[in-house]
Amino acid sequence: MLLETIHHRPESPYAYPLELDQLRVRIRTKKGEVSGCRVFHGDRYRSEEEEEEVLLTQTASDLWFDWFEGVIPAPTRRVQYVFRLDTEENTWWYGEKGISQERGAAGVFHYAYIHEEAVLRVPEWARDAAVYQIFPERFANGDAGLDPEGVLPWKSNTPPKSDSFYGGDLKGIIDRIPWLAELGVNTLYLTPIFRSPSNHKYNIDDYEQIDPGFGDWKTCKAMVETAHHYGIRVLFDGVFNHSGSGFFAFRDVQEKGAASPYKNWFRIRDFPVVMSPQPHYETFADHIPDMPKLMTHLPEVREYFLNVAEYWTREMGIDGWRLDVANEVDAAFWRAFRERIRSVNPDALIVGEIWHDPGPWLRGDQWDSVMNYRFREAVISFFATCEWTAEEFEARLTSARMGVPEQAASAMWNLLGSHDTERFLTRCNHDRKRFQLAVLFQMTYPGIPMIYYGDEVGMEGGPDPDCRRPMVWEEEKQDRELFDFHRKLLDLRHRLAPLRRGDYRTWKVDGKKGIYAFLRRYQEESVGVVINNGDRRRSIRLEGTAWGEGAVLLDPLSGGRFTVEEKHVFCTLDAGQGALLVPERAIK
Amino acid sequence: MLLETIHHRPESPYAYPLELDQLRVRIRTKKGEVSGCRVFHGDRYRSEEEEEEVLLTQTASDLWFDWFEGVIPAPTRRVQYVFRLDTEENTWWYGEKGISQERGAAGVFHYAYIHEEAVLRVPEWARDAAVYQIFPERFANGDAGLDPEGVLPWKSNTPPKSDSFYGGDLKGIIDRIPWLAELGVNTLYLTPIFRSPSNHKYNIDDYEQIDPGFGDWKTCKAMVETAHHYGIRVLFDGVFNHSGSGFFAFRDVQEKGAASPYKNWFRIRDFPVVMSPQPHYETFADHIPDMPKLMTHLPEVREYFLNVAEYWTREMGIDGWRLDVANEVDAAFWRAFRERIRSVNPDALIVGEIWHDPGPWLRGDQWDSVMNYRFREAVISFFATCEWTAEEFEARLTSARMGVPEQAASAMWNLLGSHDTERFLTRCNHDRKRFQLAVLFQMTYPGIPMIYYGDEVGMEGGPDPDCRRPMVWEEEKQDRELFDFHRKLLDLRHRLAPLRRGDYRTWKVDGKKGIYAFLRRYQEESVGVVINNGDRRRSIRLEGTAWGEGAVLLDPLSGGRFTVEEKHVFCTLDAGQGALLVPERAIK
Repeated sequence: MLLETIHHRPESPYAYPLELDQLRVRIRTKKGEVSGCRVFHGDRYRSEEEEEEVLLTQTASDLWFDWFEGVIPAPTRRVQYVFRLDTEENTWWYGEKGISQERGAAGVFHYAYIHEEAVLRVPEWARDAAVYQIFPERFANGDAGLDPEGVLPWKSNTPPKSDSFYGGDLKGIIDRIPWLAELGVNTLYLTPIFRSPSNHKYNIDDYEQIDPGFGDWKTCKAMVETAHHYGIRVLFDGVFNHSGSGFFAFRDVQEKGAASPYKNWFRIRDFPVVMSPQPHYETFADHIPDMPKLMTHLPEVREYFLNVAEYWTREMGIDGWRLDVANEVDAAFWRAFRERIRSVNPDALIVGEIWHDPGPWLRGDQWDSVMNYRFREAVISFFATCEWTAEEFEARLTSARMGVPEQAASAMWNLLGSHDTERFLTRCNHDRKRFQLAVLFQMTYPGIPMIYYGDEVGMEGGPDPDCRRPMVWEEEKQDRELFDFHRKLLDLRHRLAPLRRGDYRTWKVDGKKGIYAFLRRYQEESVGVVINNGDRRRSIRLEGTAWGEGAVLLDPLSGGRFTVEEKHVFCTLDAGQGALLVPERAIK
Repeated sequence: MLLETIHHRPESPYAYPLELDQLRVRIRTKKGEVSGCRVFHGDRYRSEEEEEEVLLTQTASDLWFDWFEGVIPAPTRRVQYVFRLDTEENTWWYGEKGISQERGAAGVFHYAYIHEEAVLRVPEWARDAAVYQIFPERFANGDAGLDPEGVLPWKSNTPPKSDSFYGGDLKGIIDRIPWLAELGVNTLYLTPIFRSPSNHKYNIDDYEQIDPGFGDWKTCKAMVETAHHYGIRVLFDGVFNHSGSGFFAFRDVQEKGAASPYKNWFRIRDFPVVMSPQPHYETFADHIPDMPKLMTHLPEVREYFLNVAEYWTREMGIDGWRLDVANEVDAAFWRAFRERIRSVNPDALIVGEIWHDPGPWLRGDQWDSVMNYRFREAVISFFATCEWTAEEFEARLTSARMGVPEQAASAMWNLLGSHDTERFLTRCNHDRKRFQLAVLFQMTYPGIPMIYYGDEVGMEGGPDPDCRRPMVWEEEKQDRELFDFHRKLLDLRHRLAPLRRGDYRTWKVDGKKGIYAFLRRYQEESVGVVINNGDRRRSIRLEGTAWGEGAVLLDPLSGGRFTVEEKHVFCTLDAGQGALLVPERAIK
């Protein structure tokens, strides 16, 4: 056995509590080498004789590794454990001291004590969520009276400039909530709506006010209430990494210089605090003058923004926050943020913006999940550009999933695009079939699907600002087939618990043929997903043991009907076609 | 190249800041496969053209892996980086997406932003510290008037029972401070001294009072001041995981039951709160009734104990804390503890008790280092029981060192024994030569040597309570040779900066012969340590390139004199002998 490849650490994502008395453990082994894996565990202060044993399940593989997982009961919250790995030839023990054929030499891992702070509690509702992202300035204009000066006529799906205004507002959102309910989403994420001179509003001048171009406190309240009436939750965008240059504290520093009581709220290099030619202060990204970086690690700054977040959470009754540039803000701020927000709304969902490895932020005390840009990258490389084989696609998704606790993996915002990226249909070179295949995958893979406004009606757009075109509302300009496809899949997702809450098991991967299939199982029910991402029609033979012999499976997408015979299902798919295999009894 | 064995993660201990603008990175590769390693880095928002390059140094190896390390300058605090690994045949790139011969396919790692909370700032003085652990009840009786009833006569080095009292006190410590200064230690760690009915005082009944058997506020203050006068720092023992059963809050809960305002300070299973036959509440370890577990995650409990810690830190002017059962207390408590203690004394050292992997607690926001029980285990297995070869010994030390940031590794309390273990000389089966070899290693290996009281005069003792015998003060009963050996090594350590502050490089490892040698280099000066742990006299040939040709090296232990000739040094050592090779100019 290639011992150097075996990996475990007694901390997340390799060991993390599900509850105060349950520790989930995960071990990575060299692919194909370990036939069975058990963990022997007990209280840290008890003897070996009192220990118990848990059989681990192989839950995932990528190109190099297998992962085994299981849950250790921990009634005293103090756990010590050692893995036993069985290969064809030998038995190995793996603990803190190393890997050995002698148990004693391996030592034991210690998870010293399970504290509440380490239990990642994602709101229950998140497991059933389907998110729709709205860029309010471009979604719908419901109140022309609020339109800013120089507003452009609403030309659906036409490229904006970075400083264009089209007059989208909160009333527009309210008016379209029934339509969103019809589509089948149940969660809205709005990019920022607080007072800001820009159309994107990521440079906020007043965190205590709704932008007057979008509406006022009352409109906002009406929007949230209407959404809730339709069973739709609402999340705001929290921009706490930086403010706008019109933010009262920054203006004070500009005016009073070193005499300002707010001078420490920013990192000022030189007084006076000029904005050009080079800002005399730290900014977001590379010298963006109207986004001065906030010193959120200072108690007074932290307190100000926690109050802001608490205020909106409580007063508007919102259901959570998406957090902008979240990985550049200090962890202490996020810990305090979680505590404060959850004290107001114990069911608030907290989702960070992070394009990379999110592990450190998902250990129970900061966020629930992240915008899953790594999912987007994988989906692009497999479905849109076909650069990756099915094996590579699976491997990348697997290692991302194994890099976070299961609770977070189930709540990842699986997006195909956002206000910060090229639109997916454009990325597919306008090939709607490829797009649909990706949507099928998005709606059936573990996590929360996130639709970027307009994608569901076939909107196009390159990178920012082109991906922020005015929404297409004229039915004749909408791709209704695409809309119906989204609606159908969202409906199936809501009706089929395995697609929302099921575990995930690879079913078939065949890179040469472009075939990728997987199973989602929840309680006793399994649903299969089969995707032909290749360029020709294929007959695919799949193991049918997830269901009984003779079980009848329906594909609600094609209307196809399949029977499990001799422990297998045969399924024929055109190039670019996907199927959902659902037991007849589950779909009625 | 065995790609599966390569490992890096953009977080501690693989990436961690030394300063707000310096990120240290570490990468693990398969042993012997990578000949050169570089990291290409830049600001996260700048283009590849602006990136810079840092050559990494191979700093360590164990049986399976090599480690390369380097420091990335990070003026903007936002870092992205990719490794380039050169092997005999190929060049590989390693980033967040994986390992590839194409740079683009590897992606980049992101260390999103360096925050102060992630900079592990260990007090500067810790690099020069030598710790002496005192168990006050057994160290010295300076005031017979304080002796508890039933006190036993001070019979040096005789086995106590678990409930014996011998009358040791703070006045006794004061009286012996000149002696400690003569020995050459400069830091005292005292096991608990607050009011408690036991001799060990780990069940504290009053955190606000010095135990009357030990002295009072004034004696304690005099002790700290006397120590400081002699240049000796003082650390207290912080027992915040559990209290004693006489602690006011616990008594209140016992008296008033569910009506007590302190009922949430403990985890009560049933009222009334009886202590036997089974305690109706959670305790430290396995049902120890007089150590009720404290709910330190509750704000009011946290606040109480932070005030306690702040009070003693400020009022006594102590220099830090050793923290009992520290890995079972919540991280939020330790973060607040660090902040509070450092606000009172920015130079306070914070050291946790943990017998296992301390990684998660040493990321900048909790402790500075730990009592290094893994060091003890390695030293026992190599020097005392000779179960490990020199290769295994080095491997285990290396992987422990590579598991924490360098700042922590330099401040580990390298102990041979403590009040919780068998004494080292006893573990050596009374073989003083083996003990001395271990002491030589302890005094020259990176980290802070910690002497358990009495070890330096040859005290013996099995596991608790036998390791807590009354200190031997009669000179004729002390092993003076051992004392002189300790004094000499401590003196050399204080005189030779490389032994305290130098980096560490393996020099020679020969398991068959039992030879282990290493170099410590600080600025331009190198000191070598050569150990013959085998059973016969050996002539050892060592590379002399750390010094110039013709350089003269002295061994202050034997008085030996060596010259670098043809780039080598020859050194002949008896079985069980060690040598220190110091350039003549450094030792004058």
